[in-house]
Amino acid sequence: MIKVTVWNEFLHEKQHEEVRNVYPDGIHNALAAGIGTDGFEVRTATLDQPEHGLTEEVLANTDVLIWWGHMGHDKVDDAIVDRVQARVLGGMGLVVLHSAHFSKIFKKLMGTGCDLKWREANEKERIWTVNPAHPIAAGIPEHFTLEREEMYGEHFDIPAPDELVFVSWFEGGEVFRSGCTFFRGQGKVFYFRPGHETYPTYYNETVLQVIKNGIKWAVPSGAAAPVRGNHQPLEEIKAK
Amino acid sequence: MIKVTVWNEFLHEKQHEEVRNVYPDGIHNALAAGIGTDGFEVRTATLDQPEHGLTEEVLANTDVLIWWGHMGHDKVDDAIVDRVQARVLGGMGLVVLHSAHFSKIFKKLMGTGCDLKWREANEKERIWTVNPAHPIAAGIPEHFTLEREEMYGEHFDIPAPDELVFVSWFEGGEVFRSGCTFFRGQGKVFYFRPGHETYPTYYNETVLQVIKNGIKWAVPSGAAAPVRGNHQPLEEIKAK
Amino acid sequence: MIKVTVWNEFLHEKQHEEVRNVYPDGIHNALAAGIGTDGFEVRTATLDQPEHGLTEEVLANTDVLIWWGHMGHDKVDDAIVDRVQARVLGGMGLVVLHSAHFSKIFKKLMGTGCDLKWREANEKERIWTVNPAHPIAAGIPEHFTLEREEMYGEHFDIPAPDELVFVSWFEGGEVFRSGCTFFRGQGKVFYFRPGHETYPTYYNETVLQVIKNGIKWAVPSGAAAPVRGNHQPLEEIKAK
Amino acid sequence: MIKVTVWNEFLHEKQHEEVRNVYPDGIHNALAAGIGTDGFEVRTATLDQPEHGLTEEVLANTDVLIWWGHMGHDKVDDAIVDRVQARVLGGMGLVVLHSAHFSKIFKKLMGTGCDLKWREANEKERIWTVNPAHPIAAGIPEHFTLEREEMYGEHFDIPAPDELVFVSWFEGGEVFRSGCTFFRGQGKVFYFRPGHETYPTYYNETVLQVIKNGIKWAVPSGAAAPVRGNHQPLEEIKAK
Repeated sequence: MIKVTVWNEFLHEKQHEEVRNVYPDGIHNALAAGIGTDGFEVRTATLDQPEHGLTEEVLANTDVLIWWGHMGHDKVDDAIVDRVQARVLGGMGLVVLHSAHFSKIFKKLMGTGCDLKWREANEKERIWTVNPAHPIAAGIPEHFTLEREEMYGEHFDIPAPDELVFVSWFEGGEVFRSGCTFFRGQGKVFYFRPGHETYPTYYNETVLQVIKNGIKWAVPSGAAAPVRGNHQPLEEIKAK
Repeated sequence: MIKVTVWNEFLHEKQHEEVRNVYPDGIHNALAAGIGTDGFEVRTATLDQPEHGLTEEVLANTDVLIWWGHMGHDKVDDAIVDRVQARVLGGMGLVVLHSAHFSKIFKKLMGTGCDLKWREANEKERIWTVNPAHPIAAGIPEHFTLEREEMYGEHFDIPAPDELVFVSWFEGGEVFRSGCTFFRGQGKVFYFRPGHETYPTYYNETVLQVIKNGIKWAVPSGAAAPVRGNHQPLEEIKAK
Repeated sequence: MIKVTVWNEFLHEKQHEEVRNVYPDGIHNALAAGIGTDGFEVRTATLDQPEHGLTEEVLANTDVLIWWGHMGHDKVDDAIVDRVQARVLGGMGLVVLHSAHFSKIFKKLMGTGCDLKWREANEKERIWTVNPAHPIAAGIPEHFTLEREEMYGEHFDIPAPDELVFVSWFEGGEVFRSGCTFFRGQGKVFYFRPGHETYPTYYNETVLQVIKNGIKWAVPSGAAAPVRGNHQPLEEIKAK
Repeated sequence: MIKVTVWNEFLHEKQHEEVRNVYPDGIHNALAAGIGTDGFEVRTATLDQPEHGLTEEVLANTDVLIWWGHMGHDKVDDAIVDRVQARVLGGMGLVVLHSAHFSKIFKKLMGTGCDLKWREANEKERIWTVNPAHPIAAGIPEHFTLEREEMYGEHFDIPAPDELVFVSWFEGGEVFRSGCTFFRGQGKVFYFRPGHETYPTYYNETVLQVIKNGIKWAVPSGAAAPVRGNHQPLEEIKAK
């Protein structure tokens, strides 16, 4: 069983009826239900909980953390961000969704501005698989369409992804690197674009399949933890 | 169960007593035994069999093909090489070992010369994990040592690996990119350096763990097969 | 001065009036004129010349080779393809344009099928810069539009580019990795998508700027040529 | 002329006679002299200057910034680090040397811990070129040796480099990714390992050639600055 924690700021759902109508129990619970229990043991955490629900104990028992945030990015405590970063560098997987491109944790792990173009116009997004050999593409068609989504456009200010899996086409004329993987320390990060709060994107079976694939890809590797610092010679060194 | 076919030219073992003493049943059988049956269904194939043991039927029933060759590279039929390449591009995994860096199939998939420096001096090789987040590093220490191996040195004439997992240190003063992954079409290729025929490298538990990890990483992705050629518009095009 | 050789199969222009109307002197001469003489010393070569105009002497005096081909791919002599590949691996730059994705030399250097989706529908292509830090993007806007081009769509069966510089959006609903770099041996390869023979693409100033940037990026590195084969120890090896 | 600013914390040279004996005028002045004036316009800046010598005006007039630091990393003002990061993301090149792997600016741009193994044992380092096609390898032999250097060993906790140019071999048994490039925003970063303060490394002609090559590679690309934020449609969107 892969231990998954779904984190959501859980603000739009409480403040905006339009969002509450789509996700009455919050995006986190919709994602948890969509991921399901077949191989996954899922819990949720939200901004308003003590330590945002991300205590040392919770993170120590999380294989992969999913992050959705938007209007509350600056309300996330820097100490918790540092704690999550340490866990990712120590091996925990991180799946970053949609507007979490601007979350403190993603920006911190990328080292760049993570800004992009955006537009809310109920337009069509078509997602193309550009790396069909990648496990995150398992069971995904070569392209699939979301009839109504927010547009995100290039230039997306991230480091070049270690692996580019999906690229989006938008009706209004833009493209976007929508599925990107990053190796960081002993951990792995997967960014996936879709999921604006006013659309039922996280009920879409193909979107959920990508997220489940991303979780499986992001599980801790199980490699030995590197030892760092002052290191004794493994071989004899000729005196100079 | 992952269906694995271990291919070996099986020439040194028959012609050189020194090699036969190390691998009396051939490198392919030593590898098959080392990979074992826990999650793997392993068969072997050799150069002297009809179609080198790599019929359409065998390849169609292979998830991951392991390739060991050295003195017989030019005896491999080009039609079989084309067949294997087509299967890799269609999704089959390929694990290329040691001197198979010069095999027709590896050179064909790389597009480069694949040449390197080499030396047989019973010297020490130390293999370092440079990407501890990678699944191929699962259960592997941050470094491990083979007391006696053939040296391979840079420049190794391959494309930059999509992921560099291991780098070797050699007693005589060289380094080598020893664990390299490559995405090709719908398939995945893993090159792993150790395994000179005169040393008992393929009985080493850590080496076998890397090979098993490589097989698991290289399984077909299960993504939809891309459709290519003349393509009808998915959106309306304004006449010009 | 960078020594550039522009190679063109030069067949459409002689056989199809529609193409001749756009490129009366051939695509090679349009490209040569467009590249100009400011820092470049340009010559041309075509399929119908002895050795396709790519003699040992010509290649030895070429820093960067530009390749345009389409209907005549299979008419290119394999011995010349091997000669060009050897020169690229030895340091010569190669700029591969549009339908040359299917040329023998590009397929050989990639190791994959290099196939894609295509459509001739006089549709709009918009090219987005996804790596504004790359020298090939020098002086290029964040996006530019070609009002009428042939569509190329994913999945483009190439290895993951070492650097992805441009991504195209097409009116009909597709995306394409349009500007891709590949390091191969001591040489560098740049693939750039636009340039269907029936459109005046190679008179477009932005397209020409990208090609000139690609030439400058692809010049031989000037690094020492690696020595390969049997190698003496650089350090003392303890006898075992 | 490429405008270069060489930044050095300039602390060891003032506090430790052993270092002052090697770099009597400071590492920054040794580097400035070594880079020379052929194509470069070089100035220096140090920690003890107002704003560490990195005012808005200085950075606005810097094409490539070189950074050497060690004992004073935590003395660098966070506001200046943010300013430098903004300039790198805006196009300025950054060459990070040796112990600056632990500088605030490098860690911030990498998003990882940037830790490693180290040892001071007057041991031999041999640097191998693994990407001879890269411009940073111009004029560099396939390997060169520093008779006495500090050891840095893997795992080096950085993101996988966009391009790996050099790998080091150490007498004591370690390897290290010594020459690494990273694209970040509109800017480029080159990390180069050698340069412990107690050794005359920055008088070594090959080391200086690598640094000069790195500066040339890191110059601003000249691509258009991406526009971000709310974006109007470029194409007509069908009302839904």
